[in-house]
Amino acid sequence: MTSGGEVSRGVRKKLINDPFDAVDEMLEGFVAAHSDIVRLVGERVVARVASHAPKVGLVIGGGSGHEPAFVGYVGRGLADAAAVGNIFAAPSPDTCLEAIRAASTEKGVLLAYGNYAGDIMNFGIAAERAGAEGIEVRTVLVTDDVASAPKTEIHRRRGIAGDVVVFKCAGAMAERGATLDDVERVARAVNAATRSMGIALSACEVPGSGRLSFDLADDEIEVGLGLHGEPGMRRGPLLTADETAEILVETILADLSERSGHEVAVLVNGLGATAHLDLYVLYRAARRALERAGNDVTRSLVGEYITSLEMAGASLTVTLLDDERRDLLDAPARAARFSR
Amino acid sequence: MTSGGEVSRGVRKKLINDPFDAVDEMLEGFVAAHSDIVRLVGERVVARVASHAPKVGLVIGGGSGHEPAFVGYVGRGLADAAAVGNIFAAPSPDTCLEAIRAASTEKGVLLAYGNYAGDIMNFGIAAERAGAEGIEVRTVLVTDDVASAPKTEIHRRRGIAGDVVVFKCAGAMAERGATLDDVERVARAVNAATRSMGIALSACEVPGSGRLSFDLADDEIEVGLGLHGEPGMRRGPLLTADETAEILVETILADLSERSGHEVAVLVNGLGATAHLDLYVLYRAARRALERAGNDVTRSLVGEYITSLEMAGASLTVTLLDDERRDLLDAPARAARFSR
Repeated sequence: MTSGGEVSRGVRKKLINDPFDAVDEMLEGFVAAHSDIVRLVGERVVARVASHAPKVGLVIGGGSGHEPAFVGYVGRGLADAAAVGNIFAAPSPDTCLEAIRAASTEKGVLLAYGNYAGDIMNFGIAAERAGAEGIEVRTVLVTDDVASAPKTEIHRRRGIAGDVVVFKCAGAMAERGATLDDVERVARAVNAATRSMGIALSACEVPGSGRLSFDLADDEIEVGLGLHGEPGMRRGPLLTADETAEILVETILADLSERSGHEVAVLVNGLGATAHLDLYVLYRAARRALERAGNDVTRSLVGEYITSLEMAGASLTVTLLDDERRDLLDAPARAARFSR
Repeated sequence: MTSGGEVSRGVRKKLINDPFDAVDEMLEGFVAAHSDIVRLVGERVVARVASHAPKVGLVIGGGSGHEPAFVGYVGRGLADAAAVGNIFAAPSPDTCLEAIRAASTEKGVLLAYGNYAGDIMNFGIAAERAGAEGIEVRTVLVTDDVASAPKTEIHRRRGIAGDVVVFKCAGAMAERGATLDDVERVARAVNAATRSMGIALSACEVPGSGRLSFDLADDEIEVGLGLHGEPGMRRGPLLTADETAEILVETILADLSERSGHEVAVLVNGLGATAHLDLYVLYRAARRALERAGNDVTRSLVGEYITSLEMAGASLTVTLLDDERRDLLDAPARAARFSR
């Protein structure tokens, strides 16, 4: 019998070894499981295996604990490399730079990641250093979480599950051989057309911390909670799926310029510990609410796309579609955790 | 604001409406989200949308609460129809018959499902009635769970995540236009070459029941637990991922005729509330243990494939590969929750 060291006795029962090895062991497992699609570059960068014609490199990344994000979205028609941080912590500048180098061709590199201070600082340092090496780098921050700041301060909004929609469209555009200008334009347009909001039913535990990420009573939910336990808009009593969907759809539509008449894509994302059955019940309610408001749901994703370890809860993402964005969502992709 | 009825105040916070509507609302959401791939036939049968050349029909199914199983595996290169029961309960004979009819062409129908008394009874009644209608029906029971009965009573073993491997290979064989004899042969061969075992870290709650499916102390795990809370082999203290993998691999290899020298596929399945990070840490440990024993892991799946609502825990599945089974696993498939 091998020994993986002490069992991590925290609040949540986990299937890990030493908490401080969890990220690197996860990455070792991840690239071994999906070696036809990805490889490890250095210690904390997951990059595409397949060689490809010169194309704009798409680099994504962020903290660990959100799996299948971000490493699961590296592959053909999606990202070229992901920079990986500790759990809920930004990747280091060196890691970000290594990811940029791994994705770089003469067509330049687009960085796309959620709007968090640590990621901005470290990706920013790396972008400067890459620039000094002659690599043209642009950055698009994902800011889909309507609950994280008012509309007048949209630049302060965090990125949550809208990340996946931005990555998918930008990745498809890059795969087509588009210029850096065009890949950047698409990423900005998708982000501008995307709104998300989540609710949390229970907290998660960062391995080794020995405590839950926040406290929540047995009959309480947090409306608008962030992916790392950032406070939401308010706490309230547990609601039905229909009531929850109504609040999420209302808040999202109120944030868009018009409530009605849109063709939209919908993503219902599970945060980790909520049953897939519940996610489809919530999707049904959200779809009905969007349709009642006069919108047409033509593309849908339901599942665990960007999690918070074993947090219970879900988020709803709505993206306004046009022909270009619909085509980009439909384009083939083959990443470890996103195929179509 | 719509009202979904009373909030279900149970032990686990859920995102549903009336517990007794949960399965039908889930199905309505599921077919709406994936209308390019599946449609609802009657109330509880999910069938492929795409018309196809006459081929052997593959019908799968079982209780709800295991999503993405079974409905997520209906699609091209996989199953033709899934019969859906209440949560953790077999589909009715009428539902099973409707699924058989939906999948039937002149080439006959293979039923593949886990070895549970209720499913055997109801699919059995349906198979007889389909036979009386002139449909040729064969049945393969999945019996991969080594913890559910000793090797001398292999016919009593339950089906757990090995279902997915059997469905994938049988579905690919049927898609190739193989005869019913050949699809049945492949399903039996894959089942015979497949072993699984799971551990549970926490229980789940059947909606409306108001209680957990079993009791487990804060520092305890159940080794060999079934998908519906059936007792496992034993209870024990919480282990590291490495220790857990060692037990699972040891037990599985001891059940096979030879421990070593196999090319194998590995599936690490999350039961619902265990983080994807943990699943990859467990996969790494299982892969290492299999390799130390002289086996070659060439195909891998890691994720939530057959869950038990929001149960925490995971299972390991090992399938001995040969050229035929490897090719069938690699064949293209496009179901709502399984694409390659």
